[in-house]
Amino acid sequence: MELVQRNTCFAGEQRIYQLDSSSLKTATKFGIFLPEVALQGQACPALFYLAGLTCTEETFAIKAHAQRLAAQLGLILISPDTSPRGEQVAQGDHWDIGQGAGFYINATEQPWAEHYQMERFLTEELYSLVQAEFPVQKGAIGIFGHSMGGHGALTLALKHPDLFKSVSAFAPICAPSQCPWGEKAFSQYLGSDRQQWLSHDATALVQTKGALFKAILIDQGIDDQFYSQLNPMLFQQACEQVGQPLELREHAGYDHGYYFIQSFMDDHLQFHAVQLQTAVH
Amino acid sequence: MELVQRNTCFAGEQRIYQLDSSSLKTATKFGIFLPEVALQGQACPALFYLAGLTCTEETFAIKAHAQRLAAQLGLILISPDTSPRGEQVAQGDHWDIGQGAGFYINATEQPWAEHYQMERFLTEELYSLVQAEFPVQKGAIGIFGHSMGGHGALTLALKHPDLFKSVSAFAPICAPSQCPWGEKAFSQYLGSDRQQWLSHDATALVQTKGALFKAILIDQGIDDQFYSQLNPMLFQQACEQVGQPLELREHAGYDHGYYFIQSFMDDHLQFHAVQLQTAVH
Repeated sequence: MELVQRNTCFAGEQRIYQLDSSSLKTATKFGIFLPEVALQGQACPALFYLAGLTCTEETFAIKAHAQRLAAQLGLILISPDTSPRGEQVAQGDHWDIGQGAGFYINATEQPWAEHYQMERFLTEELYSLVQAEFPVQKGAIGIFGHSMGGHGALTLALKHPDLFKSVSAFAPICAPSQCPWGEKAFSQYLGSDRQQWLSHDATALVQTKGALFKAILIDQGIDDQFYSQLNPMLFQQACEQVGQPLELREHAGYDHGYYFIQSFMDDHLQFHAVQLQTAVH
Repeated sequence: MELVQRNTCFAGEQRIYQLDSSSLKTATKFGIFLPEVALQGQACPALFYLAGLTCTEETFAIKAHAQRLAAQLGLILISPDTSPRGEQVAQGDHWDIGQGAGFYINATEQPWAEHYQMERFLTEELYSLVQAEFPVQKGAIGIFGHSMGGHGALTLALKHPDLFKSVSAFAPICAPSQCPWGEKAFSQYLGSDRQQWLSHDATALVQTKGALFKAILIDQGIDDQFYSQLNPMLFQQACEQVGQPLELREHAGYDHGYYFIQSFMDDHLQFHAVQLQTAVH
């Protein structure tokens, strides 16, 4: 693990690291915000933030405006890249597939399976690494994300509730099996058997897994230009069916971008801080 | 004036406009954040933010993390581009001159004089335009900026105290006549007569103009990689000589970038809100 960038920020540090990933079989980068108390060695709760299509490990740190409150709350923020990258890694034909569009799953199909193992990378390799290298409070790890990364946060939390004790999302792709982005990605990464897709679809997963979390928070802009890809109502209905508490907030005027995300970032950090405190104590 | 982007943000709107500028003799863009109360028509104090070398009208909105508190304080934030741009506009040989590096002055030399009239554009054209088009509270306009834009903020405030009632800066170029960036830009834009440079040099200007402001706030990172270009001590000495109150805060660990700026943004917005309230009432 090599430190490639470090900037003091709100008395903590915003860093970028690079590592050779065994899961992804390529070099990959992640961002991490360490609040001042973490730099002093105090164990802190940590959040993984999964970004959306076309984003990188830097997007969150620059655009999401999370460091101010994370510094106050003493939260570590981890922001991985959205896919494996590099010349030897398969490219997609468009920005909604391939590099920048890993969908946080393990691909089984060619040409993707060799490198596109984002679920394994996140839940095994990076999850272990940050616990070994940074003062992460045991058991106090949550996950959130945006759009494709909202799908990633919801599905990884539902698949791995032992790893992630709190979960929230901004404008997540709630039912990828039922929208063009998801259908394209899943058919290429996972193949044509739609039954396989359901174990990576938040709406289907919550029906199978039942109520795993005391609360889930989702913020959604009503003027989101990609609303038809997101299907928050399907996820809400599925949560209601199994008794999974969900706070789905819809906001007039807001669109899909980071001006929307920054507007509600503080609420998500507060939400995770409370959920993680409850989970640990 | 054409609206080219609009995003709801903290119940207000972050917008980008384009206009054909008579001063710059080319199209130019500016960003503006309108808090919710401004959208409702209430007159609000306004701040011009001048960005640094290589930046555009978008940099501030994305990276400076100012909208949350501006929304709370009811501040309008205006972020112009850093130079004229376009195919017909002279290019520089490097990122420290020409497009992206207008230095907020009126060029007198060739090939710059035709388009590089940033001081006139800001203090006449854009200043009038925002007052005509948006609910700006009369007399309640301040200015701040970063690096080259910190130079711009300090010098435009000292040259036009009738226009700008409050001024602050992040890591400003305090004495451009005495640093490589300034010497290169001023010799190209203004010619070789160094006497002419002094009317665009904050350290020289404050000595001429005397104490014009009740307070000036400057934040400076001690680990700023461009510290040798900035000379905050020269400006501090000049302020002391003429009795201009200055709060120069130096911060260990912080560098020249937006992770530094975002860390102290709230302090600057609070500073301007107080100064402008005092100036108006």
